[in-house]
Amino acid sequence: MSKPVVKKRAIVLLSGGLDSATVLADAIDQGYGVYALSFDYGQRHCSELNAAQSLAQAAGAIEHRVIDLSALGALGGSALTDVAIDVPCVGSSADFDQESDTIPITYVPARNTVFLSYAVAWAEVLDLTDVFIGVNAVDYSGYPDCRQEFIEAFVNMANLATKAATEGHQAFSLHTPLIDMSKAEIIQHGHQLGVDYSQTVSCYQADAQGHACGKCDSCRLRSAGFLAVGIPDPTLYC
Amino acid sequence: MSKPVVKKRAIVLLSGGLDSATVLADAIDQGYGVYALSFDYGQRHCSELNAAQSLAQAAGAIEHRVIDLSALGALGGSALTDVAIDVPCVGSSADFDQESDTIPITYVPARNTVFLSYAVAWAEVLDLTDVFIGVNAVDYSGYPDCRQEFIEAFVNMANLATKAATEGHQAFSLHTPLIDMSKAEIIQHGHQLGVDYSQTVSCYQADAQGHACGKCDSCRLRSAGFLAVGIPDPTLYC
Repeated sequence: MSKPVVKKRAIVLLSGGLDSATVLADAIDQGYGVYALSFDYGQRHCSELNAAQSLAQAAGAIEHRVIDLSALGALGGSALTDVAIDVPCVGSSADFDQESDTIPITYVPARNTVFLSYAVAWAEVLDLTDVFIGVNAVDYSGYPDCRQEFIEAFVNMANLATKAATEGHQAFSLHTPLIDMSKAEIIQHGHQLGVDYSQTVSCYQADAQGHACGKCDSCRLRSAGFLAVGIPDPTLYC
Repeated sequence: MSKPVVKKRAIVLLSGGLDSATVLADAIDQGYGVYALSFDYGQRHCSELNAAQSLAQAAGAIEHRVIDLSALGALGGSALTDVAIDVPCVGSSADFDQESDTIPITYVPARNTVFLSYAVAWAEVLDLTDVFIGVNAVDYSGYPDCRQEFIEAFVNMANLATKAATEGHQAFSLHTPLIDMSKAEIIQHGHQLGVDYSQTVSCYQADAQGHACGKCDSCRLRSAGFLAVGIPDPTLYC
């Protein structure tokens, strides 16, 4: 009798948006058994988390955990969690500016740092060392924690923070397959992998049913991506 | 009329134990206005968090936040949060071994990484860059996330993850005043700063009133520290 094949395993950070849905498909395409990890940090919309659940289920994830990070939202400081701050839309003074060095108002303080810290904690418990995250430095250059330098510094820290620091243990790998892709390239990549983008929610202020506003930065980037690559946009707009 | 003096401000991670109480006193002695940050991560004992509250109040902290990290405890993997694992006591096979390279069973996966990530998030919101943490590499050499290399890697990562990564913003400083001190030296330092150690709880399995077991690793280290420095041990034992 042949030995059972031990499948390689990875944690995939899954928000329910277009990018993380593509990363999930990428990890599965590479042969990983997937543990999906989502966060509830007081986002204005819960439809994104519902999308994450559907995506994880459809992809056959081994497990899907949603971690309650409402304490992070309660610290304030971001338009995505703080109802006192308006989400920037076309024409507003807080408009997203790819050319500038300023940090967008939708930046959540240390969000990816906190997300990845939980991923590392769960990886320790599951005894695995591969983590996938859909950060993207092209469309989100204004977010410091979406850049390659940050990712490298995080891996270095994680390898000193955990069992990986001791002899005989494998080092962490942070997989960022989308980091250098444009939104159009991400959509093309996901399309080839068979991602059903109608199941994903990107809008910063989607309603409970997942309908997108079509006006916020995230909607504009997504819509322009479908247009650029010539794939019909399956997004449900309000 | 003279300008009002703008006091320098810092976040202090405050568990309610002996070490963090000493760090709190150290930060205040250095002239910082202090924001105390504690975590409820499903510890077996809540008396430690009660101690943190008393200490923060007595020290005149500007604010004290307790962040609910029960999701971290729910990931499992540690004797401090998982009731299925026994806390190591004198003579047990899982006994703490300072001489060995193995990681103690009381290690919480990526705990300091998660704690410091929240500190960085709150620091961003408060617009400050100084964070104090009572890690100690002498008595806790088995915990990878208590070492100088980890601290340096974390600061490097934090400075790439946040506003500090952009021009015109100050870099983070992680203050670790206890990192090279023995328990006896910490107690001596705190004693000179006037710390009331009867208010602190170190025991891994203290009861609701804060009474210590006197048997776990943490109790043994603490008790030996008072003995070594010749200061009466004010700990309330069961």
